[in-house]
Amino acid sequence: MSLEEKIKSYIRDIPDFPQKGIIFRDITPLLKQPAIVKEIIDRFEEFAKEKGVDVVAAIESRGFIFAMPLCLRLEVPFVPIRKEGKLPWETVKETYELEYGTATIEMHKDAIVSGQRVLLIDDLLATGGTSFASAKLVEKLGGKVVGIAFVIELTYLNGREKLKDYDVLTLVKY
Amino acid sequence: MSLEEKIKSYIRDIPDFPQKGIIFRDITPLLKQPAIVKEIIDRFEEFAKEKGVDVVAAIESRGFIFAMPLCLRLEVPFVPIRKEGKLPWETVKETYELEYGTATIEMHKDAIVSGQRVLLIDDLLATGGTSFASAKLVEKLGGKVVGIAFVIELTYLNGREKLKDYDVLTLVKY
Repeated sequence: MSLEEKIKSYIRDIPDFPQKGIIFRDITPLLKQPAIVKEIIDRFEEFAKEKGVDVVAAIESRGFIFAMPLCLRLEVPFVPIRKEGKLPWETVKETYELEYGTATIEMHKDAIVSGQRVLLIDDLLATGGTSFASAKLVEKLGGKVVGIAFVIELTYLNGREKLKDYDVLTLVKY
Repeated sequence: MSLEEKIKSYIRDIPDFPQKGIIFRDITPLLKQPAIVKEIIDRFEEFAKEKGVDVVAAIESRGFIFAMPLCLRLEVPFVPIRKEGKLPWETVKETYELEYGTATIEMHKDAIVSGQRVLLIDDLLATGGTSFASAKLVEKLGGKVVGIAFVIELTYLNGREKLKDYDVLTLVKY
């Protein structure tokens, strides 16, 4: 079985969550399979090594789950990108549009040193709004986004188009 | 230098966050030190092996950062404990008191199989309210909480007293 098939066999489809008409892809069954998570980290590591990565930036909160195992493999810093108000020190902020309203994410000002090569990690690529804003945060601090890696891609939401200036890796597609 | 000294040297004190009179212990500088994070995971692994652990339950969201590397070492499932409304499938809930108001956390009903030995992971032990509620969630599902591990303990908030029925490991104390 390919890694894609293995991952998909542990993703649970939840109809009408968080709202009517949406199928939510629930990764919690996958997180109970350490052998498959290990293979996911293997693929992220391979991608990171091709790109040359100084820092891994993890998007709250499911991105945190995959990012630290990767940081330990690569022996590079983990830096969190969080929703507004969670990070205690000085931050840079980026606000982006949602279907209804806006969202703001933040990163500490000392998270990245200018010139560092940064890999962004999240679990799922949907519209790409959060990852695009995350890339902008990294760039505000002088970092270079060398790649963005996700476990799952919802192709019908066209997140790749939004992220077309970046190198995007996704392991399974719907 | 001991591990405790190494960890403390990368914790940043932020006065008056999130509110006046509180010193927030910011772990983001620590997360940039993979060699020290690796030693933290080594200590958690040792504790887990003494206890015999079938599942690691991670408390959102900083608990996620330390829990998955541990799950990969132990080759056991990662199960998330999240704030209300985040988990998409059927859940058990636990509501607990905060200084002002209450908070509710959830766990999927299939997160744990009755009889499993569960280790809880979070970054910081403060009053112990969240971890106590997390332990109750595990027990509602028939799991046995064999230990609760944190990186940091704020001893003056007496979280240990709240968690006196459990085996608690903390790596640094304030």
